[in-house]
Amino acid sequence: MNTNMEKPYVVGIDIGGTNTVFGIVDARGTVIASSSIKTGAYTEVETYVDEVCKNLLPLLEANGGKDKIKGIGVGAPNGNYYTGTIEFAPNLPWKGVIPLAALFEERLGIPTALTNDANAAAIGEMTYGAARGMKDFIMITLGTGVGSGIVINGQLVYGHDGFAGELGHVIVRRENGRVCGCGRKGCLETYCSATGVARTAREFLTARTEPSLLRSIPAENITSKDVYDAAVKGDKLAQDIFNFTGTILGEALADAIAFSSPEAIVLFGGLAKSGDYIFKPIQESIDKNVLNIYKGKTKLLMSELKDADAAVLGASALGWELK
Amino acid sequence: MNTNMEKPYVVGIDIGGTNTVFGIVDARGTVIASSSIKTGAYTEVETYVDEVCKNLLPLLEANGGKDKIKGIGVGAPNGNYYTGTIEFAPNLPWKGVIPLAALFEERLGIPTALTNDANAAAIGEMTYGAARGMKDFIMITLGTGVGSGIVINGQLVYGHDGFAGELGHVIVRRENGRVCGCGRKGCLETYCSATGVARTAREFLTARTEPSLLRSIPAENITSKDVYDAAVKGDKLAQDIFNFTGTILGEALADAIAFSSPEAIVLFGGLAKSGDYIFKPIQESIDKNVLNIYKGKTKLLMSELKDADAAVLGASALGWELK
Repeated sequence: MNTNMEKPYVVGIDIGGTNTVFGIVDARGTVIASSSIKTGAYTEVETYVDEVCKNLLPLLEANGGKDKIKGIGVGAPNGNYYTGTIEFAPNLPWKGVIPLAALFEERLGIPTALTNDANAAAIGEMTYGAARGMKDFIMITLGTGVGSGIVINGQLVYGHDGFAGELGHVIVRRENGRVCGCGRKGCLETYCSATGVARTAREFLTARTEPSLLRSIPAENITSKDVYDAAVKGDKLAQDIFNFTGTILGEALADAIAFSSPEAIVLFGGLAKSGDYIFKPIQESIDKNVLNIYKGKTKLLMSELKDADAAVLGASALGWELK
Repeated sequence: MNTNMEKPYVVGIDIGGTNTVFGIVDARGTVIASSSIKTGAYTEVETYVDEVCKNLLPLLEANGGKDKIKGIGVGAPNGNYYTGTIEFAPNLPWKGVIPLAALFEERLGIPTALTNDANAAAIGEMTYGAARGMKDFIMITLGTGVGSGIVINGQLVYGHDGFAGELGHVIVRRENGRVCGCGRKGCLETYCSATGVARTAREFLTARTEPSLLRSIPAENITSKDVYDAAVKGDKLAQDIFNFTGTILGEALADAIAFSSPEAIVLFGGLAKSGDYIFKPIQESIDKNVLNIYKGKTKLLMSELKDADAAVLGASALGWELK
């Protein structure tokens, strides 16, 4: 983190399908000002970028002006770090290849870097969170999907094309695997995302006959939050759903450990907040499945980025690397 | 490769369970002198190191002396790059943790680095072979086992403990997987090593009834070479064995691509020389199994290191990185 007196801040912009959140962040990871706009309201990317800038500029002025900003980091689905573009993002209103980093740079005159949201989360965790000081770790984001950001030798792994680190799409079930949004079957994220947990709930409720608190909810409406709430109340079936989820995630993580032998795996996202209900089966499954030489070496950690700020913090962390 | 006029050579030492091969290598990857001793003949590691040095020193003298050597690279099973030690290598005569790099450094006064054989092969390929100029690739060694050396951002991936890159032990069959030497089940190397191919041959010969050239060989003696010879002669069952092997390897490689999105995967070792019989099913399986965004991007290459020299070249390449 090359902070200095002259440029003590970075800007983080997190682009989600629904909201775009942006803020000014200091070197200790404090969001000193932030705001947001609705992503979906702008069918033209130029209008969108104008609107972000229009809302961001007053925040900058109130905090010493543009000259205080070392760089802007953008986290966006399908973001390519090498080119600064968003490429064919299914949940954003702009189609094709969008040169988003360049658009911000032109308007604001501040160096801008862009990567996907899971990579941004990893850099955020390394800069401000649970992975501070670590050179080798894997960030797993458990949300609607499963994302990952991999750090090796202190550097984020982008791969030769900028798209490395899609651990949500390693195959965990080769026979009769669940259909994935990517068009293949058996991907990790069909089991271990929040939506994967809801699918498991529906599967278990159909396959089993025991009573469960979850039976009072229409099957199609069950969320991973409902499963958590039931598990906390002692519901055996709900706890089994977490055991099943954690076991599969642990199997996949054991394979990931054989790849990069990380010091830690950091879990992030709503599902990761289910505490021991999910951590315990993951840890047990890693211990059971990992190759002997790695046993007991890789820490399983919970993200230390505050929820409300995490997305902006992650994106902003990229700004410190800019020159 | 920081070569210079003063120190134009490196030394490579490849330690195998049977033989230890060592040689002097120039910057273009020519082995200008080499020799070998029997590894298993030395129950004491000190005596072993003495014997290697006794045989190596005359080669050094004949080529300008120790001062011409930039560094020594050692490739050894269970070699740990960070510590320069061999740790609990099952096929070597010395037990426990052996500080091998230090032992050579003490005796020869030349900086020495050590890593495992698959990592050494990867560095060799990057320095002299098919991966020259690449910053992101994966080396897969198909021998008695399946080894791997992973290069990301131009650096070998050692992980936080020095033991990263054991792709031979990712799980490819979670149900009814083959028992592996590591004590687990379903590891890649139980299917895709030379011994894995022989296991498949025995399995297919038992399960199927069609005629095959392989039926003339006692089942326990069948090798991957026999399968190759039969495949070349048009034996359908032998060709099916390669298809089966390649399909599984391709599945595992498709997952590896989702991890680091490499520019190429380089195959090395006896099995890799079975040409299209193995390359074609691997490529087809990668194409079928890889996530859309990676499709058609990662090259599948054959090692360009000459067989007889490959081990020494790989180990020696580590010598260029020493200061």
